Amino acid sequence: MANFARTTDNHMPAISAKGRSMPPSPIRKLVPYAEAAKKRGTQVIHLNIGQPDIATPEVALDAIRHLDRTVIEYSHSAGYESYRKGLSAYYAQHGIAVTHEQILITNGGSEALLFGMMSCFEPGDEVIIPEPYYANYNSFAMSAGVKVVPVRCRIADGFALPSISAFEALITPKTKGILICNPGNPTGYLYSRFELETLRSIVLKHDLFLFADEVYREFCYDGAKHVSALELDGLDQHAILIDSVSKRYSMCGARVGAFITRNAELYATALKFAQARLSPPTFGQIASEAALRTPQSYFDAVVAEYVQRRDILVDGLNSIPGVSCPKPKGAFYCVAELPIDDSDAFCQWLLESFSHDGHTVMMAPATGFYADPATGRKQVRLAYVLEQPLLKLAVECLRRAVLEYPGSTVKEQAGEAVR
Amino acid sequence: MANFARTTDNHMPAISAKGRSMPPSPIRKLVPYAEAAKKRGTQVIHLNIGQPDIATPEVALDAIRHLDRTVIEYSHSAGYESYRKGLSAYYAQHGIAVTHEQILITNGGSEALLFGMMSCFEPGDEVIIPEPYYANYNSFAMSAGVKVVPVRCRIADGFALPSISAFEALITPKTKGILICNPGNPTGYLYSRFELETLRSIVLKHDLFLFADEVYREFCYDGAKHVSALELDGLDQHAILIDSVSKRYSMCGARVGAFITRNAELYATALKFAQARLSPPTFGQIASEAALRTPQSYFDAVVAEYVQRRDILVDGLNSIPGVSCPKPKGAFYCVAELPIDDSDAFCQWLLESFSHDGHTVMMAPATGFYADPATGRKQVRLAYVLEQPLLKLAVECLRRAVLEYPGSTVKEQAGEAVR
Repeated sequence: MANFARTTDNHMPAISAKGRSMPPSPIRKLVPYAEAAKKRGTQVIHLNIGQPDIATPEVALDAIRHLDRTVIEYSHSAGYESYRKGLSAYYAQHGIAVTHEQILITNGGSEALLFGMMSCFEPGDEVIIPEPYYANYNSFAMSAGVKVVPVRCRIADGFALPSISAFEALITPKTKGILICNPGNPTGYLYSRFELETLRSIVLKHDLFLFADEVYREFCYDGAKHVSALELDGLDQHAILIDSVSKRYSMCGARVGAFITRNAELYATALKFAQARLSPPTFGQIASEAALRTPQSYFDAVVAEYVQRRDILVDGLNSIPGVSCPKPKGAFYCVAELPIDDSDAFCQWLLESFSHDGHTVMMAPATGFYADPATGRKQVRLAYVLEQPLLKLAVECLRRAVLEYPGSTVKEQAGEAVR
Repeated sequence: MANFARTTDNHMPAISAKGRSMPPSPIRKLVPYAEAAKKRGTQVIHLNIGQPDIATPEVALDAIRHLDRTVIEYSHSAGYESYRKGLSAYYAQHGIAVTHEQILITNGGSEALLFGMMSCFEPGDEVIIPEPYYANYNSFAMSAGVKVVPVRCRIADGFALPSISAFEALITPKTKGILICNPGNPTGYLYSRFELETLRSIVLKHDLFLFADEVYREFCYDGAKHVSALELDGLDQHAILIDSVSKRYSMCGARVGAFITRNAELYATALKFAQARLSPPTFGQIASEAALRTPQSYFDAVVAEYVQRRDILVDGLNSIPGVSCPKPKGAFYCVAELPIDDSDAFCQWLLESFSHDGHTVMMAPATGFYADPATGRKQVRLAYVLEQPLLKLAVECLRRAVLEYPGSTVKEQAGEAVR
């Protein structure tokens, strides 16, 4: 055989175009700077990720600790029937009527999105997404060969849904769907029923799929009520609900999500993708099924805590000269506009060159949340998933930082004010 | 808004072409017949699936039962570093030198295959797979838009690897990879070092990626030793190892696999797909890391059990007039040729119209394991993952069934012999 082996080890087949253009995680490039800061002894306050510090419900952890199986078998490809029946009752409590045969359990919300995009869209099809949007939507779209067409939401409008005409200006013969995140990552924006009815009318008029990522359903504030895409009339064939237990039960590592639709043909199609990967995780499903018994008091306490955190962070941000941050009604993120030249440079500078009382702040530059990074050049996303004293400290860090940062645009005036 | 909502609920956007052509699970169409048989009181002996009845190692279950976490967080997108370091030591014991930075933990072997295909192949590229092959390879290839080109292995040759010339006859400018399963599902075939060297020479000569699905590594019989694709010289840029804990520890529901390559650019590319889906499952990784401490005695006992089961099933099959089944050296499947007209019809008939002492057998028609179903028309796949008395009973069922089946092709002769 040796005569065949002429190629040296330096030669290699090419990586795919899809693989090359796949975007890396938007905060990944900052990680080495955060690690260096920690090595210098600076405490980094992580506002950059949506990993809550909230305890997972005991009822879920207990189910895992009392595991009584001897063989960890595959579940049904659509997930355990008992869990899906439990979920059907959970949704009924939230005003969403779905049977267990309309629920497909997935490896997190991520896999639900991937199955949905693969099942609904041809390569080259377009999906409209209000921006700023969750950066990983780009990755799932790219996996399916789908083009993301952003429709701009403005910070001056509190990131409200744009008008029907703004959507219709973007609709082409290739447009096949709209994807929303409600309440939203990264903005925390909660869509009103009126806005959802607007989306409903566009979807029906242009015969589009409506993907609604509702993984933050439980996190709505100030008495606002969440409205699901599956509560809208006449969308049985069009609406797809993307869900996950990750945030609901602070159980991100369980990797249990759901793809939900009343469209039987679409469900059957997604199930074929699910059969190919055999089964969602058994342990995670056991924990998730038990978590359905989480008492309402758990959510009441968590929501009360997030409201306090939000108020500390958002009110604090708005008290900084030159900073503007709409107060979100849901999820646990906000997007703030800062008096700076470049959020990527600022976030790096915070880790590399700044500290206040031994602390600095890590944030996600909003450049990763816009189709055109330039749009997010002055904005950052902050997650309020840390304890209140740390959030207060983070605000004080940022108050100093926007003064000291060489690319600050309010340096002089603000500097005067402080003096 | 009402004026927009003209479309009735019967109207719906179209399912994608990919979704429509996605193959359903090859045994799914038989499930209703199995359920009906059970309702009639017939006991169905399930030889159709690779879900072992072997107990998961206690050390893995104990780790889950002693869970000491209060928040079930995301892990690193590549998996816990401690687990990857443990895996690196496990591979070293098997003669495979890889660092933890060459190991990416995935949601089962399935996700590893998907990441690999997405990272290596353009839509329209071709991958050569020795057939019969694991039916779900079609699904992952379809998800990535890749064309599967089968190279035929013959039951008369015991499903040995075809010659270099058979491969080269199939290589086109679109050929970008070869995918093997070793030991193989569905045939149980274990590749020799000579066969792997043959593949190595083809891969290097034509600059192809070599995917090696080695999830049955531990299950090699009769003193045969498994040789990994990562043990072959000069393939650092070409070889991708697909692995999983599912079969090794009878822990199919853990959904923990691995994508392993020494090609740094390819690893970085696959990691971007992994970052998009955030994290592999936390619980499954905890169990899998603990399972690394499974004693060798566990594997010795399991292998001894599978050898006995294999001998009962395969020797039994070969004792039936007109049946031929190569004795596999690995995994826990075999493919048998039967004296029948059509394996789909036969497998359905077994569930619908046959019973012997209150029992019948469910098998996977081999039509699902060939690119052209006609090739597998007389073959079935059987998994020997059940206790020995059931396997003996299954053989007796099949001995009767091939006589009674209306489409039997040895009915008369065999009928004479029995009389």
